[in-house]
Amino acid sequence: MNGLQEIRHFLEKGYREYRANVSVDCTIFGYHEGKLQVLLLKNKLLSQWSLPGGYVKHTENLDEAAARVTAERTGIENLFLKQFKVFGDPDRNRMDGFDPEMLYEMTGVRVTEDSWLAGQAVTIGFYAITDIVHAQPKADIFSSESQWFSIDELPRMAFDHNEIVREALFNMRIHLYHFPIGKNLLPQKFTLKEIRLFYEVMSGKTLNASNFPNKLISIGLIKKTDEKLKIGAHRSPTFYTFNDEVYEKALEEGVVLV
Amino acid sequence: MNGLQEIRHFLEKGYREYRANVSVDCTIFGYHEGKLQVLLLKNKLLSQWSLPGGYVKHTENLDEAAARVTAERTGIENLFLKQFKVFGDPDRNRMDGFDPEMLYEMTGVRVTEDSWLAGQAVTIGFYAITDIVHAQPKADIFSSESQWFSIDELPRMAFDHNEIVREALFNMRIHLYHFPIGKNLLPQKFTLKEIRLFYEVMSGKTLNASNFPNKLISIGLIKKTDEKLKIGAHRSPTFYTFNDEVYEKALEEGVVLV
Repeated sequence: MNGLQEIRHFLEKGYREYRANVSVDCTIFGYHEGKLQVLLLKNKLLSQWSLPGGYVKHTENLDEAAARVTAERTGIENLFLKQFKVFGDPDRNRMDGFDPEMLYEMTGVRVTEDSWLAGQAVTIGFYAITDIVHAQPKADIFSSESQWFSIDELPRMAFDHNEIVREALFNMRIHLYHFPIGKNLLPQKFTLKEIRLFYEVMSGKTLNASNFPNKLISIGLIKKTDEKLKIGAHRSPTFYTFNDEVYEKALEEGVVLV
Repeated sequence: MNGLQEIRHFLEKGYREYRANVSVDCTIFGYHEGKLQVLLLKNKLLSQWSLPGGYVKHTENLDEAAARVTAERTGIENLFLKQFKVFGDPDRNRMDGFDPEMLYEMTGVRVTEDSWLAGQAVTIGFYAITDIVHAQPKADIFSSESQWFSIDELPRMAFDHNEIVREALFNMRIHLYHFPIGKNLLPQKFTLKEIRLFYEVMSGKTLNASNFPNKLISIGLIKKTDEKLKIGAHRSPTFYTFNDEVYEKALEEGVVLV
């Protein structure tokens, strides 16, 4: 099938493969060199930017749906995605932003009131954190382009997606205190200053230069290596690295990082 | 309508009022004198205990559904309910635990594969915290009895409800660090020891006897009153009370309580 045929098939027969009223929307935070951004797509049928998202298949659970949708829509595989909130106001509907006439002109399909796409939908918000250099976003059949936007300069988005990103950021920042992050985002070996600056960007807060890294050390999440960064004769900060075992356990059980 | 007629109407025509594939399930934590319990119901159509829960109406949002369902099922009004996770495995279905023959014998209605109740359902987990003395649980038309169970001695529950309670507890304990609780659970005036013991029960952890209350004082969440508890000549701990303004703001914006 070509792209247009695929879209037509989805609009008409999608209910065979997908649950009609349940979708996922993914806020992908991109970290790179002290900046926090979010990946948005421009849908061919929408004039506004939106989050990567889509319907849940009958055969998959919610985590699997979020992983598939982000991989399909953005080309980024194996993201660690975390569910944070469901959005289900009675008047929210994935198709709300679509102009039915434009849809008909583009596809020859009319989405009417009895369409499987016309009902009340809940969408489940997931977020992920990646390094922008690891991600090579590609547009899918529904999308014309994808782009990273600074968290401070987001455009007005389709549907309730601005609210979803706000909630994603709020919840990610609470999770920061209880689940370790940093693997695949920081270099294999990093200085205490590097990990503190990383956490400052992620949390949006200034952190104490000694208390914060001391806490990470005291719970065993990071450990000293034998290497030092050579800056000058009197300044050569030690490199640290994550303790994999503690990291994985904390990811599973939660910790207190403050 | 009597109870049986109501159940029949629900089974046959419920889709007119309710969204077919979206329900809420509520973990109501009851605190009283140092003990943490959970309210469970015995459904007339199930042989096992289960959480108060039900379908979402077409006209309401998810928070409204959770408030209505808990009030209807338990008689407890105005609970502060907090969404914490969605459960949506492909094989989960609210009707799974029901014996269709028993249902037919009781109601005269057969729930077949094309019933509005037969599809894949997601359920949205909410939790609430109340003082057991404020709650006067009453059974509704679907329930034969309701009972508080200690968090350490929960029975085997219907569906995936044991998992839902585990996740409710896990998430409530993370939220403890970021959103104040205690109003309507502690007396209007309380000693530092009382609030610490309360937090120890809620968090399941031993807290430092001076660091923990000092943190609450330093962020302004609790404040001294002029009164003291009279225990003896040499021990008369001061009573504290919540600072309403700081409490409400922290509830809205989140804080760091550790």
